[in-house]
Amino acid sequence: MRTIDWVDGAVEIIDQTALPAELRTLRLSTVEELVGAVRRLAVRGAPALGVAGAMGVALAAATGGSVARTAQLVRSVETARPTAVNLARGARRAAAQLPHGFDAVLAEALAVRDEEIASSMAMAVRGADLFAELCGASPRLLTHCNTGGLACVTGGTALGVVMEMHQRGTLGGVIASETRPLLQGARLTAWELSRAGVPFRVAVDGAGPYLMARGEVDAVVLGADRVCANGDVVNKIGTYAHALGAKAAGIPFVVVAPESTVDNDTPTGAAVEIEDRDGVEVAGGLPAVNPAFDVTPHALVTAVVTDRRVLRFG
Amino acid sequence: MRTIDWVDGAVEIIDQTALPAELRTLRLSTVEELVGAVRRLAVRGAPALGVAGAMGVALAAATGGSVARTAQLVRSVETARPTAVNLARGARRAAAQLPHGFDAVLAEALAVRDEEIASSMAMAVRGADLFAELCGASPRLLTHCNTGGLACVTGGTALGVVMEMHQRGTLGGVIASETRPLLQGARLTAWELSRAGVPFRVAVDGAGPYLMARGEVDAVVLGADRVCANGDVVNKIGTYAHALGAKAAGIPFVVVAPESTVDNDTPTGAAVEIEDRDGVEVAGGLPAVNPAFDVTPHALVTAVVTDRRVLRFG
Repeated sequence: MRTIDWVDGAVEIIDQTALPAELRTLRLSTVEELVGAVRRLAVRGAPALGVAGAMGVALAAATGGSVARTAQLVRSVETARPTAVNLARGARRAAAQLPHGFDAVLAEALAVRDEEIASSMAMAVRGADLFAELCGASPRLLTHCNTGGLACVTGGTALGVVMEMHQRGTLGGVIASETRPLLQGARLTAWELSRAGVPFRVAVDGAGPYLMARGEVDAVVLGADRVCANGDVVNKIGTYAHALGAKAAGIPFVVVAPESTVDNDTPTGAAVEIEDRDGVEVAGGLPAVNPAFDVTPHALVTAVVTDRRVLRFG
Repeated sequence: MRTIDWVDGAVEIIDQTALPAELRTLRLSTVEELVGAVRRLAVRGAPALGVAGAMGVALAAATGGSVARTAQLVRSVETARPTAVNLARGARRAAAQLPHGFDAVLAEALAVRDEEIASSMAMAVRGADLFAELCGASPRLLTHCNTGGLACVTGGTALGVVMEMHQRGTLGGVIASETRPLLQGARLTAWELSRAGVPFRVAVDGAGPYLMARGEVDAVVLGADRVCANGDVVNKIGTYAHALGAKAAGIPFVVVAPESTVDNDTPTGAAVEIEDRDGVEVAGGLPAVNPAFDVTPHALVTAVVTDRRVLRFG
């Protein structure tokens, strides 16, 4: 099962807004449909967005429109969401092939997809090895948001590490933060863990730091939408609070993300545009403030595990 | 409007599980009904629970049963919820009058009620004065859970301070954390602020520390279910995470609670039994861990404002 793929001339995604109630596939045949799906989070997760960006450009190339019109479509893909670096990076990679025609663009998009699949496997192994080093036998992990196969193509980033540790028999337990407002933890991570037969417990986001203080968590593992040049991590809202909790409890705080998420062009978290989403997601008709992401300073980050290396901070 | 009162031989409460959809009054004529209402949080908030404890004993005294049976009923009131000190303290105060008959018990329960009303007024003034001292003109506050009239009899603790500052014209804004899993912030605090005409924004619990780091909050103000002898604060889950955020942002973290919440018999937060509630509140049928409260070490607390004094820590 792939979260996103190119099938018979269109992009097919698992509609993540329908989970866990229904496992539904959406077929996106136009750039407009793809951008809409990205905006309403039917497809999400930094690695999956990288593939969506590249495949969105393939959809643009397939229209055979003028160079100006195609550039306009590419731009709409790149900017569908501002915070994750992968979306724009995937789009730009595919767009670089536009002068060589549709087949070259599609080939690049498929390469982005295949690289993300390989990257997930590499991160799982490297992350599980790191936890064996940092925590010894059977650590109990807390994770936030969804970083499993649904956030990638298959496999996962942080949740891929959790799955790998479960398969190795070295996982002592996992708590999934529900991840308000859209409940990616309670809906998507819980669904993936259930399917894989991994025992877990869900907690409200506000409980994470206290569960760490109470001694129920040995380490935090989660993903990133962007890792800045100085190691600052931009990730789902609530990440920073969990990082403060981990620091206070003296436990490792580990970020797992592919190299495609590491953005050396962004010096620090202060330079990242944080997407503020519609308050209706939080509180129905009430006024709300709804930042979708937050910035965790590198001083709170024990390590960033990528498919190629382990960056150590903190 | 009173959240809890004694009316014609029974306890009447506003059913807080029905808000904001419906403003419904529940009449509790037996100890069993009162204990049930306390357990399912139809009445909640430390000061209101103190009154519920005392009035529950009045209901027990009204049965005219044996001393042993009455003692059993009193015990069921005291232990309906384990973490808030006020419930057991209110029950014990009223129970001390049992040898003097029902009228003496009821008089004590009404005294507890009247003291909580007076206490709310005193805290509002003292708290608003403290924020003028700590933050200068028009601070933007963040509050958690519900600490308004609904948590007391009328008035409120932390939210009473917010209301007082609004009336003085010294409130720069207020963010209400939604307070998962039962959404006391989004349901109850938002309802009270709307009724009072105070502009506000709701945020998910995980956003609080980041909103502080982003410079949108000048101070945190919230209540307590128990203040330990050393100043450790036991309050709604999510409080500790907000305290970590306030410390990291260098902004005041102020607790507002009546003297009845200060428990010198409990040396530190480590000695408090934290109520773990049914996971069904968090995630439907999924496994969950659901501590209802957390412990904030006194080193993270700038001040505790009571109706009689300002205790300074941090």
